[in-house]
Amino acid sequence: MKIAVIGGVAAGTSAAAKARRTDPDAEIVLFEKDNDISYAGCGLPYYISDLIEEREAIVVNTPASFSERYNVDVKTGHEVTTINCDENILFVKDLANDKKIRYEYDKLIVATGASPVVPPIPGIDLNNIFPLRTVSDADQIKEKALEDNIKKVAVIGAGLIGLEMVESFSKLAKDVSVIEMQPHVLPQFSNEMAEIVEKHLQDKGVNLILADGVKEFIGDEKVNKVITQSGQEIEVDLVLLSIGVKPVVDLAEESGIKLGKTGAIAVDSKMQTSVEHIYAAGDCAESKDLLTEKPVWVPLGSTANKQGRVAGENAAGGNYEHLGILKTGITKIFDLTVATTGLNEEEAAENGFEPVSVKIRAHHHAGYYPGVNQLDIKAIFAKKTQRLLGAEIIGEKGVDKRIDVLATAIFSKLTAADLFQIDLAYAPPYSSPKDPVAILGMVAEKKLS
Amino acid sequence: MKIAVIGGVAAGTSAAAKARRTDPDAEIVLFEKDNDISYAGCGLPYYISDLIEEREAIVVNTPASFSERYNVDVKTGHEVTTINCDENILFVKDLANDKKIRYEYDKLIVATGASPVVPPIPGIDLNNIFPLRTVSDADQIKEKALEDNIKKVAVIGAGLIGLEMVESFSKLAKDVSVIEMQPHVLPQFSNEMAEIVEKHLQDKGVNLILADGVKEFIGDEKVNKVITQSGQEIEVDLVLLSIGVKPVVDLAEESGIKLGKTGAIAVDSKMQTSVEHIYAAGDCAESKDLLTEKPVWVPLGSTANKQGRVAGENAAGGNYEHLGILKTGITKIFDLTVATTGLNEEEAAENGFEPVSVKIRAHHHAGYYPGVNQLDIKAIFAKKTQRLLGAEIIGEKGVDKRIDVLATAIFSKLTAADLFQIDLAYAPPYSSPKDPVAILGMVAEKKLS
Repeated sequence: MKIAVIGGVAAGTSAAAKARRTDPDAEIVLFEKDNDISYAGCGLPYYISDLIEEREAIVVNTPASFSERYNVDVKTGHEVTTINCDENILFVKDLANDKKIRYEYDKLIVATGASPVVPPIPGIDLNNIFPLRTVSDADQIKEKALEDNIKKVAVIGAGLIGLEMVESFSKLAKDVSVIEMQPHVLPQFSNEMAEIVEKHLQDKGVNLILADGVKEFIGDEKVNKVITQSGQEIEVDLVLLSIGVKPVVDLAEESGIKLGKTGAIAVDSKMQTSVEHIYAAGDCAESKDLLTEKPVWVPLGSTANKQGRVAGENAAGGNYEHLGILKTGITKIFDLTVATTGLNEEEAAENGFEPVSVKIRAHHHAGYYPGVNQLDIKAIFAKKTQRLLGAEIIGEKGVDKRIDVLATAIFSKLTAADLFQIDLAYAPPYSSPKDPVAILGMVAEKKLS
Repeated sequence: MKIAVIGGVAAGTSAAAKARRTDPDAEIVLFEKDNDISYAGCGLPYYISDLIEEREAIVVNTPASFSERYNVDVKTGHEVTTINCDENILFVKDLANDKKIRYEYDKLIVATGASPVVPPIPGIDLNNIFPLRTVSDADQIKEKALEDNIKKVAVIGAGLIGLEMVESFSKLAKDVSVIEMQPHVLPQFSNEMAEIVEKHLQDKGVNLILADGVKEFIGDEKVNKVITQSGQEIEVDLVLLSIGVKPVVDLAEESGIKLGKTGAIAVDSKMQTSVEHIYAAGDCAESKDLLTEKPVWVPLGSTANKQGRVAGENAAGGNYEHLGILKTGITKIFDLTVATTGLNEEEAAENGFEPVSVKIRAHHHAGYYPGVNQLDIKAIFAKKTQRLLGAEIIGEKGVDKRIDVLATAIFSKLTAADLFQIDLAYAPPYSSPKDPVAILGMVAEKKLS
């Protein structure tokens, strides 16, 4: 059995490792066009802020250590240029010497990931304008950001990664502006919840520019000014582009592997693509939304990891499924934790759920126990079934616990009444006799009745 | 409608408050034989350690504030001596002037709570030997514990509250011994998990005496020595008794209300007792174990609160249920958090589940993110159905999150495979791409297959 994996970050390395565990005798080769594999993409903002000083901490495995640990032939600097799906052949370019390699596979796993959206804005090619995706992107940004003469930073795009980077640059004592085209930060959140984050950013001294896009980057070699569509001029020494990412699917598409409506590679629950023997996993592949049962594309490290594992097992002759996702996301923005799971009100309405929205504010642990904070929870329930459909939570502490309990509740199709009944753990340092989840259930039941 | 409530701590006040919200016009009277109501029993160890300095923080409502807030006639210092179930009459002693009152009710809620077990050990009546149950117990202990000449403390019984008090006394710079009759601390935990806690206690300088009971307390007015059954002599200035509690059921039993096999008051899911119009809630009442569907008695504040709420709503003409419990418990012991939910191996085996035990150790968040710690998780799955039945977790951080996710999973009848599929929130400060819950599911699936 010869298994080829294209791509060596979260999904690719998970797939190769699981394939090895499933079939100790397979020949497994992993092609990665960059020099690094197996790095923690989600850790890059903390590497840049120097909270994590050592590059080695972020790179979980080197090509050599991965190769030795899993008996996988790791070929970095190798770009797969063509997949011949009929004859199960890969054509690969060895970038170091421009040589072409031909590799025959029995099973193939496509894990080509995603790449940053770099819009064709005038001046985009000036120096000191960076996307953030790979460790080498992070290396370049970190090198610059640690320079004293880099004082003013603009972050373009106020999604999860953009706001993580706002915190990173602030920790490095930069003067940070955020420019977001939408009227609010964190587009997946409802406006009222996003406003809590906006206030927090402003309290931390961040210059927040909403409902405005970049018209032009100005500079002489290096960028030194951002001009917005509304005409604001912002002096900058460095720009971070975090407008979003798109799936890397050219290779797959050109080879005849079908893409889904989202633009990412269509897969079934076994991570099989439209072509037999070819699997896809990670940021290049779709997932199924567990609530709407529709294909969605939400590139996150946790999903990439699971999909990679499932693809690797199945490619090696096993039989496993990835059932789908709830689009659960979480991020730390200065002192706040901000998290979401399931559908928001609009998505729920579009999918015919007749959403009822419930908002509560509750202590994250016993009110009398030192260090108490407030949690703001907004949740969506289906009017007919009273099922929980989605939640957004913002607070300083205890957010990650409640979002995971609610994600588990959505996964389990629990109702508002169920949320009151779950026997959650109570002691003063951790919760209240009525946990915020129970309070949410109580308030929702009342509103739904 | 006249609603009487006997007992004014967690269940009684929850019941009275919910009855008021359900029926704005009812006459509601609450009889409590002590002077305090509505105090946070679970907060007392932190009040004693002076982490919470003010008594007012622990007493959520005074009789006057509760009365005003909920329009409830609060009669403290009033002991109900008889319930005439046939004629719906209470006989109540006003303890201040030894007068008898007669009160006719339409609906009655019994929330008489639990009382500490005080064993007939020679010397038990010496001064400076205290149980801990009420705020006045806590007041007495705190007054003594803040004295400089109280240097050596023995805690008898190493359950959750005993170990919380060990931490409290240590924080007050006392020299603390723990004496436990069982061979391990925390009897609801498996031995291997209890041993982690034992090592931590010893690292913190606690003198741990296991598999040994108290034979005698020695002293002249005040206790000054504990002699154990094995003959050890321990010098002490103060003794805390935390051997356990028993339900306060004499009044109910003598009035003809049926007790269950556990010795607590038998109730249905509406918290109704064997007598129509009489409900029971809180530490005096049984619950149903959601896994075995058998009655159990596990007196905890979170359950008391929920049961009180359900009893109050139903007494006032509503219709609500408390489905049962998973015996979920959590406590902080110095730097560790220790939590459990569901069945342990013995309980699972006794109830015919053919338990398979799975142990994992995993990072509580991304390994490269500063401040990472290990979680030890031991979980029990049913061999045939692969359902999660119970879990114990010990670690410094992130324990409360995982126990609540697993409690939600047990409530929802999830299997090992489901644990891998739940879309839990991932970002480096909160978790790993594979959360410990997902890892547990993966390891369990493999072991079960």
